[in-house]
Formats: sequence, C-alpha cells, structure tokens
Amino acid sequence: MSSLLNTIGSSFAFTSFGESHGRCVGVVIDGCPAGLEISDIDVQTKLNLRKPGQSIVTTQRAEEDKVEILSGVFNGKTTGAPICMLIWNSDVRSSDYEKFVNNPRPGHADYPASVKYSGLNDYRGGGRFSGRITAGFVMAGAVAEKLLVTTLSLKIFAYTIELGGLRADLSKLSYEDIIRVRYSNEVRCPDGVVANQMKDLIVEERGKGDSLGGVVECTVLGLPVGIGEPVFSSLESEISKAIFSIPAVKGIEFGSGFAGTRLRGSENNDPYVRLDNGRIVTRTNNSGGILGGLSTGMSLVFRAAFKPASSIAKPQDTIDLSTGKESKLVVPGRHDPTVVPRAVPVIEAMTSCVLADLGIRGGYISRVLKT
Amino acid sequence: MSSLLNTIGSSFAFTSFGESHGRCVGVVIDGCPAGLEISDIDVQTKLNLRKPGQSIVTTQRAEEDKVEILSGVFNGKTTGAPICMLIWNSDVRSSDYEKFVNNPRPGHADYPASVKYSGLNDYRGGGRFSGRITAGFVMAGAVAEKLLVTTLSLKIFAYTIELGGLRADLSKLSYEDIIRVRYSNEVRCPDGVVANQMKDLIVEERGKGDSLGGVVECTVLGLPVGIGEPVFSSLESEISKAIFSIPAVKGIEFGSGFAGTRLRGSENNDPYVRLDNGRIVTRTNNSGGILGGLSTGMSLVFRAAFKPASSIAKPQDTIDLSTGKESKLVVPGRHDPTVVPRAVPVIEAMTSCVLADLGIRGGYISRVLKT
Amino acid sequence: MSSLLNTIGSSFAFTSFGESHGRCVGVVIDGCPAGLEISDIDVQTKLNLRKPGQSIVTTQRAEEDKVEILSGVFNGKTTGAPICMLIWNSDVRSSDYEKFVNNPRPGHADYPASVKYSGLNDYRGGGRFSGRITAGFVMAGAVAEKLLVTTLSLKIFAYTIELGGLRADLSKLSYEDIIRVRYSNEVRCPDGVVANQMKDLIVEERGKGDSLGGVVECTVLGLPVGIGEPVFSSLESEISKAIFSIPAVKGIEFGSGFAGTRLRGSENNDPYVRLDNGRIVTRTNNSGGILGGLSTGMSLVFRAAFKPASSIAKPQDTIDLSTGKESKLVVPGRHDPTVVPRAVPVIEAMTSCVLADLGIRGGYISRVLKT
Amino acid sequence: MSSLLNTIGSSFAFTSFGESHGRCVGVVIDGCPAGLEISDIDVQTKLNLRKPGQSIVTTQRAEEDKVEILSGVFNGKTTGAPICMLIWNSDVRSSDYEKFVNNPRPGHADYPASVKYSGLNDYRGGGRFSGRITAGFVMAGAVAEKLLVTTLSLKIFAYTIELGGLRADLSKLSYEDIIRVRYSNEVRCPDGVVANQMKDLIVEERGKGDSLGGVVECTVLGLPVGIGEPVFSSLESEISKAIFSIPAVKGIEFGSGFAGTRLRGSENNDPYVRLDNGRIVTRTNNSGGILGGLSTGMSLVFRAAFKPASSIAKPQDTIDLSTGKESKLVVPGRHDPTVVPRAVPVIEAMTSCVLADLGIRGGYISRVLKT
Repeated sequence: MSSLLNTIGSSFAFTSFGESHGRCVGVVIDGCPAGLEISDIDVQTKLNLRKPGQSIVTTQRAEEDKVEILSGVFNGKTTGAPICMLIWNSDVRSSDYEKFVNNPRPGHADYPASVKYSGLNDYRGGGRFSGRITAGFVMAGAVAEKLLVTTLSLKIFAYTIELGGLRADLSKLSYEDIIRVRYSNEVRCPDGVVANQMKDLIVEERGKGDSLGGVVECTVLGLPVGIGEPVFSSLESEISKAIFSIPAVKGIEFGSGFAGTRLRGSENNDPYVRLDNGRIVTRTNNSGGILGGLSTGMSLVFRAAFKPASSIAKPQDTIDLSTGKESKLVVPGRHDPTVVPRAVPVIEAMTSCVLADLGIRGGYISRVLKT
Repeated sequence: MSSLLNTIGSSFAFTSFGESHGRCVGVVIDGCPAGLEISDIDVQTKLNLRKPGQSIVTTQRAEEDKVEILSGVFNGKTTGAPICMLIWNSDVRSSDYEKFVNNPRPGHADYPASVKYSGLNDYRGGGRFSGRITAGFVMAGAVAEKLLVTTLSLKIFAYTIELGGLRADLSKLSYEDIIRVRYSNEVRCPDGVVANQMKDLIVEERGKGDSLGGVVECTVLGLPVGIGEPVFSSLESEISKAIFSIPAVKGIEFGSGFAGTRLRGSENNDPYVRLDNGRIVTRTNNSGGILGGLSTGMSLVFRAAFKPASSIAKPQDTIDLSTGKESKLVVPGRHDPTVVPRAVPVIEAMTSCVLADLGIRGGYISRVLKT
Repeated sequence: MSSLLNTIGSSFAFTSFGESHGRCVGVVIDGCPAGLEISDIDVQTKLNLRKPGQSIVTTQRAEEDKVEILSGVFNGKTTGAPICMLIWNSDVRSSDYEKFVNNPRPGHADYPASVKYSGLNDYRGGGRFSGRITAGFVMAGAVAEKLLVTTLSLKIFAYTIELGGLRADLSKLSYEDIIRVRYSNEVRCPDGVVANQMKDLIVEERGKGDSLGGVVECTVLGLPVGIGEPVFSSLESEISKAIFSIPAVKGIEFGSGFAGTRLRGSENNDPYVRLDNGRIVTRTNNSGGILGGLSTGMSLVFRAAFKPASSIAKPQDTIDLSTGKESKLVVPGRHDPTVVPRAVPVIEAMTSCVLADLGIRGGYISRVLKT
Repeated sequence: MSSLLNTIGSSFAFTSFGESHGRCVGVVIDGCPAGLEISDIDVQTKLNLRKPGQSIVTTQRAEEDKVEILSGVFNGKTTGAPICMLIWNSDVRSSDYEKFVNNPRPGHADYPASVKYSGLNDYRGGGRFSGRITAGFVMAGAVAEKLLVTTLSLKIFAYTIELGGLRADLSKLSYEDIIRVRYSNEVRCPDGVVANQMKDLIVEERGKGDSLGGVVECTVLGLPVGIGEPVFSSLESEISKAIFSIPAVKGIEFGSGFAGTRLRGSENNDPYVRLDNGRIVTRTNNSGGILGGLSTGMSLVFRAAFKPASSIAKPQDTIDLSTGKESKLVVPGRHDPTVVPRAVPVIEAMTSCVLADLGIRGGYISRVLKT
C-alpha cells in the first residue's frame, strides 16, 4: 500500500480532494496515457448518473455538478500530464451539521473522525467522509473507462441486485439486456418487476424515517487473461481496496463468494472446456473470473454490500460530548433513504480505475496511444 | 496502491520471496520500529500453527519449517533495519507438477499464470501461487503482532466460524474463552461440538477425494479510536487488500456485512452509550468496529470466505494445452482437504501486519521503542 | 521511488498539475498535519517571490499569480485533508510556440518530449516542462515551511552564491544577515557588491541575446539530529531528487562537495566538540550537516547548479523535423536571461517539502498539531 | 518518494537487507521481467569487482562474498517472481567497533545513528551504514545491467576520473578504450599514466594514516530518446536519489554540471544536427544526455563526488559520550584509504537499477521477455 492517504493506483492513479461543503470536489489523475480523446461530455455523462436530486429515491439536494477539466487535455486528447477536474459546490446548508460536532450521528464517522483529528476536521456535510467525495471517483472513472473501452474493448457495468432484502432475478437477462436497461429505472435494477418493488419499499421506509441497504453487482466483459499482479496486487486485492473506499461498503465477494464456501471443491472448481473457435473457457464461473489473483479471461463478477444509509430521520441515541450525557438525535438535512442506486456508477468508476491501473502495470495498455 | 508486486504495507511493510519448491520461502520486513524484543521462538511459535503435516485434516507434506532470522535483530532486539527471515524447503516432490503445465488444474492459477508469464513461471508446487508462500506472511505477522501487543496491548485472534456449511455457535463463549480454546482442536473452531462435526466432515470428504471451504472470523480487541487513513487507506481497504492476498479467499465482510444490508438503518446503526468509566461505546457493533474507515474503539470484527480447496483427487475436466483436446485430470500430490484451519494463523498474521502499518502511519506506534 | 509521475513525498506529499499555457497551475498536498494555521497570504507571500515580471532581470510576462486555496483548510487551519491550491493562467501568447514543434529549441525538452509523447504533449509555453510549473512547488513549499517553522522552529533560506561565474563572498555575513538581506536585491545575492556586478552582467548578456547560469546555496538551521531515512531515503537522496525536479538544475553538492574530494580525510572529517551548554557539535561542517544520510544537528548546507537559461535570442542551429533539414532558430517570447534569482524561492520550497516529509516520516512532526 | 526505507525503484525495485557484521548482506529484486537468463556467474562477476581484499589500495578484510540466488530463477531464467540473493558474512572483527558507541568517529554515521535509534542500531562494522551494504546494490545491478544489455543493448560504464585531486585525461580515449581498460588497474582509471600517480598517492597517504576522495564518472551509451518520467521522476532525480544512497557520495553533476553554470546559454545549449543516417543528435553534449528530465538519445554522462574515506588511522578529536568529555580517537580496523576504486562497480550497479526501472515504467522494456 502506498503511504499516500488520498491517492489510489500506481500507474493510473488519482488523488481525491475537496469536501462536501467546501468550495469544490475534485480529482487529479496521474499516469493516464497520452492520446486518449476525452471531453467534458464524457465525464459529465458519468457524473450525471450519480448526481443528487434526480428522483424521489435520492436526496433532494440540488447541485449542478458541472465538471471542469483544468489540465492534462490538449486539442481534445490527453497529453500524459496530470488531469485535474473538479465540480464546484453550491447548494450547501452547513448549519445543519453544527450540532453533530457534539452529538455524533450513529453509523457516521463523526465520532472517530473527531477523536482522530482532535476536532479539526471539516465536519460540514460530513466533510471528507461524505458520499459527495465519490463525485471525484466518478470523474476519474470516466477517463479510466474510456481508456479501457478504447484500448481493450472492455464492458464494465454494475447494477443493483438486492435492496432491502429484495433480490433481483437476472437469470432471464442477457449481458446485453443488463447493460441496456440498468440505468432505465431509479433503482438501477435490471429486473423491472423487482425494481418496482424496491422503489415502493424505499418510499415506504422513507416515510417511516428509516433507510435501506443493498447489494450492487459488477460485471466486466472482455478482460484478457492475466490481469493482476500477485501476490499483493492481486485482482481481488486491488478491487477490494478500491471498493471499500466507497462510503457504506461493508462487504465484497467475488464469484460464488460466501455461498461458494458451502460447495464442495468438485462443485466449485470451474472445469476447462475449449470452444469451437479455439478459445479456452471454463464451464462455470464460480471463480468470478479470477484465479491466483489473475483474470482468467472469463467475466469478472463481484458484489459489494452497502449498509443501510446512516442518516435517518428517526430519533437515535447518542452522547452529547460537551456534557457527557446521553441524548436523543434527529438527523435533519436531506439524505438518501438508500445509497445503493447512486452507488452503481461509483462502483463502475472504481472498478474502471483499478483495471486501468493494472492494465498499464501489466503492459496490457501502453503509455502512449498512437493514432 | 504501491507499484511493487510483492511488498505490502508502507510504514511497516514486508516483501515476500520464495517459491513452493524453490530453495526457501521468506520475507523482509521494512519499517519495524527499533527496540522490539524478538527471537526465533516468537516467530517459530506462530509458524508452527500453520505448519503442514500436523494432523489428519491437513496435508501430509512434512516440512521442518524452522525459521532463521538473517538480519535486523541485534542483542535480541530489532534495530530499525530490515528483518530478513526465511525457512528452507526440503520435502518437495516436483515431478507431481510437470503434467499441470499442459493440463491446468481447475480452480488453480495454472492457466492464467502460464499465459501471463509465457510459461516462464516456476510451476513446481504452484510456485508463487502456492499456499506455502503464506509461511512468510506468518513470519511477518509474528513480528507485527508482538509489536502491537507490546505497544498497544492489542488482542488479535481468528478462528474457524464455518466449515463446509457447518456453523459454529459462539454465543455462549466470552472473548477470553475463544482466545484460549481456538487452537485446541484441529479445525481451530472454538465451538467444540461443531468442531467435531467439522472434523468428521473433512475426513468424509477427504475419503471421497473432495474438499471443503469455510469462513474464518477475526476479532481484534483494544484498538484505539481513529486507526485508518481515509479515504484510500481506510481500515477496511487495507485489511481487505491484505486478506485477499491469501490464496483461496473469495469474500470479506465487516461487522454485520452482507446480512446487514437487509436491516433497516434504525437497526443497523450502532447507538452511542457512555459507560460508567466515562468511555464512549456503542450498544451494538454492526459496524464491526469501523466507521468512515476509522476504528471506533469497539472490537474490530471481520469474516473471510475461503473457497473449497482446489486440489482434489476426483477426476476433473481440463484441456491438454499441447493438443488442444479435452482431457481428464486427477491431481495427485498431498493436499489439504480444506485450507481453513491452516488459514487461521495466516489471517491473524495479515491482520497484524495491516494494524502495525496503520498504527505507525497514524502515529499510534513510534519509530523507536524506548526502554 | 514511487511510481507516480507527478507526486513527490510520501508522508507530506504533493501532486503537481497544470501547464504553462493551460488554464492553471496547481498542486494538491496530501498528508499535511491537521491544525496548522494557513491562509492565502502565507502562500501568496512566497508566490510573489517567484512571480515573473518583477524586475529588469526577469521575464516581462505579467501574471497576477493569485493563489486560491480550494480545499483542506477550515476555520483558518488545515484539517488533515488534501489541500488543493492553484493560480489561473492569463497572459499567454501561445502562438510563439507553434514553430518549436518542428524546430526543437536547443537546451529545451522540445525534442525528447515530442518523441516520448508522440507529439501529443501540450507544447505551448513548454507545457509541463515550463518553469511556470514551479509556482505549484512554491505553494506546497509555503505550507511545508510554515509547518517546519511552527513545529521545529527551522530556518530555511536560499540565496544566489554565484551567477555567470561571479562568486559572492559571504564570509563576513552572519546567518541573520543573510536571512535578512537575501531578497533585498533583484539577484537574491546577500553580497551587495557582487549582487550589483551580477545585475550588470545580466543586463549586458541580455542585450547580447544571451543568458547566464549560476549556483544557489541553501542553508537550514535548527534541524534535530537524525532526520533522514537510510538507506534509500537518506537526506541527500531525498533532497537531490526534489531539487533535480526543478528545471535547469544540473548539479548538487552537500557541504564541501566536489571541492571536498580534494581534501584528505583528516581535513574533511569534522571533529566533535562539546559546547558549554552540553550540545555536541562539530568544529567544521564539511559534511553539510549530513552523515550516513542523517542530519547531524549542524547546519544543512547544499548548492544547486543551474545551467544558463536555454531560451536565448541569439540564432541557434536546429533541425526542421518536418523537412529533416538543418535550420536556424531564434527564440522570441519573453524569457528570463537567467533563472537563478527566481529559482531561489523554489529551492527553499522544495527543501521545505522534503524536510516536512522526512520530519513526519521519522516522527519528528506529529499528524495532528494540538492547540 | 516511497515511504519504504530500504526499497528503491518502483517497477524494477530492490530491497536491501543485512548488516556489515550480521549474518549476511542481501537483496530482494521485485519486478524483474520474466525470461531473463541469469546465473550465479553473472552476479558473481560483478560482485568480484567490488570485493574487498583485492589489492594494496583497498581494505585487507577478506570475504569470500560468494553469491547465492535463493528465489526467482527457474531453469536458468527469471520467472517474474522476486529474486532474493545474498552473501554470507564471515571475516568479522566486531570488537573493533565497541569503542565507537561512546566515541563517535568523525565523518561516520555513529553519532546521528545512535541518537536516531536510541543506541539500538547494530553498530558492529557500521551496521547498515557500512559500505558493505553496497554488495547488495551490486547484486541487483548485475541483474539490471543484464536486462538492459539484453533488451536495449545499453553500455553502462563508470571509471575513476579524479582521485586526491589527480585528474585523468580521457580526451584521447574512445568509449571502446574506456570500456576495455577501466578495470585493468587497481584504481579503475582508464588513463594509465594518471592511474599510476593515483596509486602512488594512495600508498603514500595510507602510510600517513590518511585517506583520499575522488570523482567517479559514469557514461551510458545506447539510451533511446525519452527515458525519464517528469516531473518528479526525471532521469536526473532518479539517478541522483540512487547515487546518494551510496556511502560517501557528497555531490553529483550531469553533463557540464557546475562548470556549465559559468558558460553562456549560447555556449551551453547543444545545437541539433542530423547525421547522414538520419539520426538527430546534438553537436555537443553539455546536457549530459538529458533535457527536461528525459534522455535525449545522446550519451548519458554524470559524475559523483566521493569524500575522502572517513576511517583514518590518524588520531582525531571526538567526544566520549559516557563522560561528556573530549577524547582522542584512533580508528583501528582494516579500511580502504579511498572508497573510489571499489565504488566504480557500485555506481554502475545503481545506474543500471535506475535505468531498468525507468525503462520498464516507460514501456521501453516489457514485463515478459519472449523467446
């Protein structure tokens, strides 16, 4: 692991900066190959997918979130120089947060952050611990994904597979279907029937002042064999490190994951077969496309567990740190009743950044894209 | 992430070297504070816990696995210089492995590794992809754990919580019980009744030429508030990266994890309460002791999913790469019917290394331990 | 060395972004301890020292160079979060540079950069190879220096010691004199007599369309014993790496340096003596305050060699890459006849960044500055 | 800079371990491409060049220094796995060093090391601060050089250019001459006449109990255009960082270096010309083959300044730390009267390691050498 706190990646790396209620949220990408066509629109399109205030199921905070590319792009192409991008903050109501300094919100970073930084951290809107930081992740991911599509023709797509215990049934959908429909409903679930149930559940729990968790699945098609750098930069290691940087993630599993631990070896091992076109594949994909920390050439599949959103309207027990007495807390503000739908593009973004990094590290993507 | 392939950690870091059937397996620790008392025995004690050939439930390969400390210790104490330690390999039967070069074993790294390294990798015994590499992890962990115990009085303990679908019931055991009994049976499960069932199941599946997976839980007591370095070196990020470096791990979850995604926010949030001694704690610990990527001061709790061991005696389908035709493979050799029991000390080791690293990075452990 | 291209430092690190004629030049500092009072003025004061257009001896390009702090500071203090700062570019005349794409300027990066990046690099104003990038270094250095002054009471000061072969005589000046007068003349040379000669020489050579080089010396007072992290992060290693990031530096020497190679060991070794106050010092300081890569507690002293500025008005031989024929080149634009005076604050800045980094790494500066 | 203390490089990296009077001195290389033929002899040949006890001008300590390759090589080729190599220590006389714990040797790291590590460092033979550590550098360099020769056909050669103020005249020697004769005399100076003078001077000063410094020049032929990763991994930055890791180095300069600061821009700039074969070169090479931190395709040339060896037989002033009183010190033991000749292969080794690293980072050398 690098000793840098706010930089991830080594060959395609990015540094996150900005706070929820500061002046801006942004990112500096370092190591992006020269010669990639990139425009504001490429980034904005992705950013719009996580923008707040889009639907009834997300926070009503209205931010324009218009990206500005400040460096590293010249004549419409990357130059190999660092790419700084940011969005300016506008619609902030910081006064909401002052009370949490002394009354830490359960499930939030308020208490450990205050202890760690001796109360010096910017607590407004959660500061660096806010989900808003992930807007920067999405900016970086937009560039990474375009790089992967351009050079390796990858398809990277995430979707809500479970929400509040409601599980989608994707067994009748092709990858193409999933890719096409995943952003067509507010909960980003490709199973339209369950998507409606999820939406109803969100509205119901929102009405009760409560919140929901869920599971996002991510699939990557087209990976060449051998991506990953064991032993400590295995594909699982790097993806998991990146995914756990997203607020509210509490678990990750690849392929058959936890359920696979209950299978026998003869069931869980994926036997090799040879397709008519000579390609070697496995009959099943319990490995999630990874063996020995290396991509196998099969679909990469993992799932991330998101806890129920911590900010709820229901009264909760906390401690008033100024008096040392127990107190009741009601979190006002405008919050997502679940972070899952908006996390979908963030999962795609972080996955793209990891694959771009490992792709360059392993020599699968060159440092200059020649025309 | 660092660009180094075989080094993990930044302030307390270690580099892994050696192959399963090469001359040795070892490790170089860099950044260990000066002044820590360390001896061969400290390391050997831990190493013995993962040594093969110990019981009916593990591989019959007999290695002495006697550690030699080659540098960094002077007059019984660490000096601040790199600590090189290794064990020599002895009992190897490499001829077993030659056939896998052209007949990749399902569930193993044979195929992607051969593609990635153009067949140049040392395939004997799985080479760098062998579980034997984790002997080095345990050496590093022995030093890390001693550092954590000495400076922060931490207690780090893992144990088998599930094996082949059999779930232990720890509800009646105290932490002290678990710490005391976890290595007292061959499956490293603190629930003696279920431990016996696990053992029977292993013997049964071994007889069938099959294998089992399971779940190891790890608990850490005594962590101060604030360990972890967000956003990208969050406690979850660094632990998960380290744990996924262990062969056969396919999932990880912290606190309520995947099950927690089905709770409501009002159920999953951990309310703050104040103990009589003034300490602020949470009533529940669904967060697994981590909020915002920082330790909360509660117990750190996570679970790692281990897939069933890939090496099985049952015939499996594969491809003969020299002919391109499908073939049947029987894996001979001497293998663990499950890696779970031997993985327990490895989980403890990697957890210790991460905590030592973050402890130094955050200033919780100083660079020189003064007497 | 890190694999990141545009980040330097590990515990106090900064990432440089921006191009000479792009939208801005900036920096993101990661790892600055929380609790440091910092304001726009702190940074602007330093930035003004390297601002162009200040005197007859520097370029006439007029930039406002007004710093904006975009993140990481809250209520006037650092929070421990990344600090993004930038200046916007305004007065650019990019058309000057189009001809150099095919007619590389001798002494500039034009040719190797064009080959390396297949012509995709932003060539306007030298792009990433411009001295303007060092404005970002100065911003980072302003924060680093304030940190060092606040926590360790260091004094970091550089000055022109030689320019165009004219050597200053500092033998009659105390450190206090040097600190006080070094920015009082345009060439930043504490020897007023020689400073005037230097200035005259600059004007003379400028008139001839030629340029000058020189040597900047840097002294640091107040370093504790033991700063530096051997073997590969020795104090000399880290300072030299940072200093060679400054355009036009071609040499560095510590203490007696190259001249010291002609002394005998008995002359160059610095004998230890004990002051009346009990402090152990050395009688001479040929080591430049560094032994074994560690600070000795004596003054840190080094000198950096700056080549004569590459941009000159005199006609020079080059190749027209479009035709492959030899051609004559006259570099128009507005350029410094010597970079030495403006490099003085840049040397101070990079030195401060390295010392802040090593100070934190070694535990000499804590992660949170408590009040 | 990485936060690791004893690892250098990012893509081709190595970790140094071992102490002067410990059990061994060694190295672990990480990131060496798979498929490089390497044998004990390749490494031993280089190691023999820095072996002590070879001639009248070096220390009389007799070490066998026989390398053992412990990992990472299989069937005579590198596998892509970490390469651990070491030499065992044998001829140690540690009792010589006990007195220096309380009587720090002038010019050595004794005093600052003792303060930094609270006296816990292994002081025997200088421990980690001993020149013996560079045996590991040479092992790593042997592999790096072979990689560079195999993939890029580079020629890397260093030689003594000045010793005790005696300057070699290389003006009449071709590169081929220098390459051929540089190791043919004990001082590693290609100018045979001056080499004899140097040798006489060494013997003379040795007789007086004194020591000498000098300058080693290093030249690299065959570098492609564009090696180096600005802004912070410029070719000068990475070389200087590596070279200052060698004990006794106090200065470095590239191309015209310090002398070049006295030239005018019109003299120091290297004009471009086109050879008949179409290759673009510069008429002079004052840049030392580097512009903008990138290789220009011309010869890379730099010089490193070595201070006179610190260990001298003459009595010196020091402080007895146990009493606080001034004392006289005579350094017994067996020491080099100058480190310069033995430093020549070390300079070559570190240069090779840096170029291998930057070569891989920039994509000039691939991760797998296919046959």
